[in-house]
Amino acid sequence: MSLPIWLDCDPGHDDAMAIVLAGYNSKLNLLGISTCHGNQSHDKTLRNAALFVKAAGLTNIRIIPGQDKPIMRKSLAAPDIHGESGLDGTHEMPVFDPRFINDSEKAVPYLSRLLLQAPTPVTLVATGPLTNYGLLLTLYPEVIPKIKKIVFMGGSIGPGNYSAAAEFNILVDPEAAHIVFNSGVHVCMVPLEVSHTAIVTDRVLEQLDTRCKSSPFSRLVIELLLFFKKTYEEVFQFNQGPPLHDPCTIAYLIAPEIFTVKTMGVDVVTDNGPCLGQTVCDIYGRTSYPKIDVTMTMDPDAFFRLMLDAWVKADGQSPMNQSCHLKTV
Amino acid sequence: MSLPIWLDCDPGHDDAMAIVLAGYNSKLNLLGISTCHGNQSHDKTLRNAALFVKAAGLTNIRIIPGQDKPIMRKSLAAPDIHGESGLDGTHEMPVFDPRFINDSEKAVPYLSRLLLQAPTPVTLVATGPLTNYGLLLTLYPEVIPKIKKIVFMGGSIGPGNYSAAAEFNILVDPEAAHIVFNSGVHVCMVPLEVSHTAIVTDRVLEQLDTRCKSSPFSRLVIELLLFFKKTYEEVFQFNQGPPLHDPCTIAYLIAPEIFTVKTMGVDVVTDNGPCLGQTVCDIYGRTSYPKIDVTMTMDPDAFFRLMLDAWVKADGQSPMNQSCHLKTV
Amino acid sequence: MSLPIWLDCDPGHDDAMAIVLAGYNSKLNLLGISTCHGNQSHDKTLRNAALFVKAAGLTNIRIIPGQDKPIMRKSLAAPDIHGESGLDGTHEMPVFDPRFINDSEKAVPYLSRLLLQAPTPVTLVATGPLTNYGLLLTLYPEVIPKIKKIVFMGGSIGPGNYSAAAEFNILVDPEAAHIVFNSGVHVCMVPLEVSHTAIVTDRVLEQLDTRCKSSPFSRLVIELLLFFKKTYEEVFQFNQGPPLHDPCTIAYLIAPEIFTVKTMGVDVVTDNGPCLGQTVCDIYGRTSYPKIDVTMTMDPDAFFRLMLDAWVKADGQSPMNQSCHLKTV
Amino acid sequence: MSLPIWLDCDPGHDDAMAIVLAGYNSKLNLLGISTCHGNQSHDKTLRNAALFVKAAGLTNIRIIPGQDKPIMRKSLAAPDIHGESGLDGTHEMPVFDPRFINDSEKAVPYLSRLLLQAPTPVTLVATGPLTNYGLLLTLYPEVIPKIKKIVFMGGSIGPGNYSAAAEFNILVDPEAAHIVFNSGVHVCMVPLEVSHTAIVTDRVLEQLDTRCKSSPFSRLVIELLLFFKKTYEEVFQFNQGPPLHDPCTIAYLIAPEIFTVKTMGVDVVTDNGPCLGQTVCDIYGRTSYPKIDVTMTMDPDAFFRLMLDAWVKADGQSPMNQSCHLKTV
Repeated sequence: MSLPIWLDCDPGHDDAMAIVLAGYNSKLNLLGISTCHGNQSHDKTLRNAALFVKAAGLTNIRIIPGQDKPIMRKSLAAPDIHGESGLDGTHEMPVFDPRFINDSEKAVPYLSRLLLQAPTPVTLVATGPLTNYGLLLTLYPEVIPKIKKIVFMGGSIGPGNYSAAAEFNILVDPEAAHIVFNSGVHVCMVPLEVSHTAIVTDRVLEQLDTRCKSSPFSRLVIELLLFFKKTYEEVFQFNQGPPLHDPCTIAYLIAPEIFTVKTMGVDVVTDNGPCLGQTVCDIYGRTSYPKIDVTMTMDPDAFFRLMLDAWVKADGQSPMNQSCHLKTV
Repeated sequence: MSLPIWLDCDPGHDDAMAIVLAGYNSKLNLLGISTCHGNQSHDKTLRNAALFVKAAGLTNIRIIPGQDKPIMRKSLAAPDIHGESGLDGTHEMPVFDPRFINDSEKAVPYLSRLLLQAPTPVTLVATGPLTNYGLLLTLYPEVIPKIKKIVFMGGSIGPGNYSAAAEFNILVDPEAAHIVFNSGVHVCMVPLEVSHTAIVTDRVLEQLDTRCKSSPFSRLVIELLLFFKKTYEEVFQFNQGPPLHDPCTIAYLIAPEIFTVKTMGVDVVTDNGPCLGQTVCDIYGRTSYPKIDVTMTMDPDAFFRLMLDAWVKADGQSPMNQSCHLKTV
Repeated sequence: MSLPIWLDCDPGHDDAMAIVLAGYNSKLNLLGISTCHGNQSHDKTLRNAALFVKAAGLTNIRIIPGQDKPIMRKSLAAPDIHGESGLDGTHEMPVFDPRFINDSEKAVPYLSRLLLQAPTPVTLVATGPLTNYGLLLTLYPEVIPKIKKIVFMGGSIGPGNYSAAAEFNILVDPEAAHIVFNSGVHVCMVPLEVSHTAIVTDRVLEQLDTRCKSSPFSRLVIELLLFFKKTYEEVFQFNQGPPLHDPCTIAYLIAPEIFTVKTMGVDVVTDNGPCLGQTVCDIYGRTSYPKIDVTMTMDPDAFFRLMLDAWVKADGQSPMNQSCHLKTV
Repeated sequence: MSLPIWLDCDPGHDDAMAIVLAGYNSKLNLLGISTCHGNQSHDKTLRNAALFVKAAGLTNIRIIPGQDKPIMRKSLAAPDIHGESGLDGTHEMPVFDPRFINDSEKAVPYLSRLLLQAPTPVTLVATGPLTNYGLLLTLYPEVIPKIKKIVFMGGSIGPGNYSAAAEFNILVDPEAAHIVFNSGVHVCMVPLEVSHTAIVTDRVLEQLDTRCKSSPFSRLVIELLLFFKKTYEEVFQFNQGPPLHDPCTIAYLIAPEIFTVKTMGVDVVTDNGPCLGQTVCDIYGRTSYPKIDVTMTMDPDAFFRLMLDAWVKADGQSPMNQSCHLKTV
């Protein structure tokens, strides 16, 4: 029986690939997607989610718009990493179709209803800032028993990326992360130390190209990943390829056996200063910080096997590859 | 034409008197009341609001339950000031009647609908922590054009009360205050420097007793204020009587001419440490903090004339004073 | 018998007047002066001290150079208040005479020797940042029994001046103030709330002019104070005259009866942020902050009587007023 | 020609071994030793230094007492790691001989004179908190041109040890570290990431025992290291042996080729909170933090070859091994 999950994201190149992996693995039942400000402004991440869900042929998925700024702070985007659109690097994206968006209600109240009505607890995944989930837990704590687990990409045990001490997703809305960590919900963190091992090497791109026979959809994915490679090289001096942060969360739900995990106290710094947004990890067990499952390692080869399988399945469903649809995408 | 206002409160002795003043002045149209954790846990402040609305004969007012803890922090109550019930000091309170509470929806979504449907902008008053309004502005920024002003009791220009640097309402949920201050809404702060001039002297109590002919309702009010006097003497060494903080906000809407106001930059400290919850007031105009109207002085005699008029009007409507109702209260 | 005192200062217009008051009151025995960075860079404050000691005819006083920057932070000066020289506003200053400076040793080791050899405990006065005294206490804690008291101008109970929350002297070197407050030495603080009542009105200047018969020295003092008046009007919107902060410390030693004092816990904020350098005053006694004597009020008329007497005495000794010296000053 | 170095330490088990390595390598010229509060109170670290210098036969070395508490904070010791004496684990220590201590002057003024008179710049090594060097740089900045480099053990790139975010030496006196980092002196940091690779395995102890033929001195060293092993196992769950932090600094001066180094911006957190004392390392070069040489890796085998050579040399000089001295040690 498949695991019911919800994906909150801010596409973003690696978020897009998390959508593919979440939508095309039989162990998971992707109930829907919500969007958050983050890698770009919320109007852009919402649009990108709709575009990529369509491109990936996930025709049953609807996207619920979430918060357009952090709980308490000004927005912060990462155009240096994801470009002005938040999903730069290709001209092959399908035409925007508003039917993929369900904006009858915002993500926070929508999720509160969905969870309260869910027959079994749902696993919540976040690949962007934790604003939506943080507000959900603050405003509707009655949903907590219906949340099986929150798994998020973000934080770090050692140095950060977007500041010296903080990883981008936490830095953007540290108060939201603080709410999630202290909510009593079972929380699992996939930090930079793991996501930085999910390097999209040239060999990964070659395998993708070969297995999809250079299809339009695979070309789109490759173009996006080459853009991501370029910005990671420029900004963070990565020279083997870009790290595919976000799908690691999904891989953890599909194949926890390819990860090692350590449960430890983790505090989120909400005080302004050089450590704002840092996830302070108590590796020696000397504090009373809230206990979090922290993934420590991942098998990158096994991860990319999962990722390639999902890309290939999406390739089989993508309207971009169907001659009859080519004109309209 | 009367000013439509909403009152968010955490009764609390002085909140109770703010309800009377808001409900019994012809210049104001009290649309309803919501409650917040604060002086006591939310279940107690909600109950207290219902009890006192009933005691004061405000039969048309319904109370909407709000947030039961701060946005990001643990709850903090003030039993040393307001007692275990949050409204200690009397045995004369009417029987609790759940019909005064409308719990079909929580305050935050309720207020978002109310404001969006309001024919004209509404003035929001807060006499407790700003949790409900903070979340309203974060989750539903579309209501901002329908908010005429937010007037709150809280903060200080100089020292605080519940910590050396911070006033209680802000200390309890500084993130909420930060959201309100930075929301772009016209905000007016009634700080300790003003509320500490609203001293309920023995003479005020005598006037109340005389004008209400020692009625059951006036005895209830006097008992509550004597309890408040006692705790303020014990905790804060006030020896002339307790400060009636919260109704000053309502008085400001009724009679702004009895106040002086200065617009200045005010920052709310959300960093942990000795200044957490401080309202840093830039009296020399050297910063770019968000601009807030800060009331600087109030005419206490004029204030208590308003307060006495309201008590007398409530006395006329209180079911406690009506022989036919006495048994059921 | 006169009280032995040491004056650490950063002249600065008001420091200069503190030198006059300390040097020309028979109740005090001014042992010497040390200088500190502060109102201007240390080379300028040292030079200003030497110039003004000479102008005031304090021929027996030697000046010991102190620290030229804060213990841990970058220097911060106040040219907007004291001008580029630190003592702007006059062209009548005497010629610089290096013999007024004793630079055989720095203030910190010099003071450690002086105190250890002193027959009775010495009162230390500071009218600038507390860098010298802070380092003295850290490096030579053995002098503590030989310090009768440390009296300093600085801090505030309510708002600051150089930042919204902090007074200049503390803001410049908060770590030094933290050391002094926590040293166990008897500390007395003269905050802005007191020094802002020492307003140099036009009437004060007229009295000075009349009593000194418009002598060269009195003209120098008046020119300096008029410059100070102008900057206080521009920067802080003072329109009755500038506040003569620093001599209030000396007046407190001469005539404590013209002050009211309250002993309270005071914490110095050393965390970066909007409250850096704030003196958090616990007026309700709810903390365990180190206990400090805080002057709460001062009688300004009595203060200026002391000040005028000292100016007149200095006028009698000033080489500027002596025809035989006029050429060489 | 040998490198003139000064060693400031707080023995401490690993400090003791740093003394041996510094005193018995021909590439270095150990000018002297000063002591600091740290692993234990200063009276204990001073005594331990004298004891171990004597035990190691370094008869020409004199120890200068330094600061007995941090610049601004309360002392913090590590009895859980180093025991009540600061050098627990043996009963074989020689009799204390006060002649090894030169207390004519404190370390800070002593070092200022030593440096100003030094014919060539001196390398300063610190294996404890940076209090002495921080005060030296603050009080006597004129020595800066006579300091070749400051090499210290402390800080971390990732998690800390004595708090979740901070390494002990920096946590104890973060203001001192801040002064050193911002002084303009060439600074080299040997962080936990390197010192945690200097594991004293059982094999290392066996080699020591064999090469010294189970001499009294080698038994002393082994007993100390077995105590250190036990506390590291209990407190930090190290199960291969304890990390010999402090001598890594000396090894870096002897054999820089066995280290890799990266120059990066490093900020020291002096704000109170969970990150107090953290060395925030900017590994991606996105800040303007002061640039520090950070050692990234060390060859542990090469390190222990140096260490064993030094132990063997000390063994040859130790009065503990000389029959004629055995009674008096």
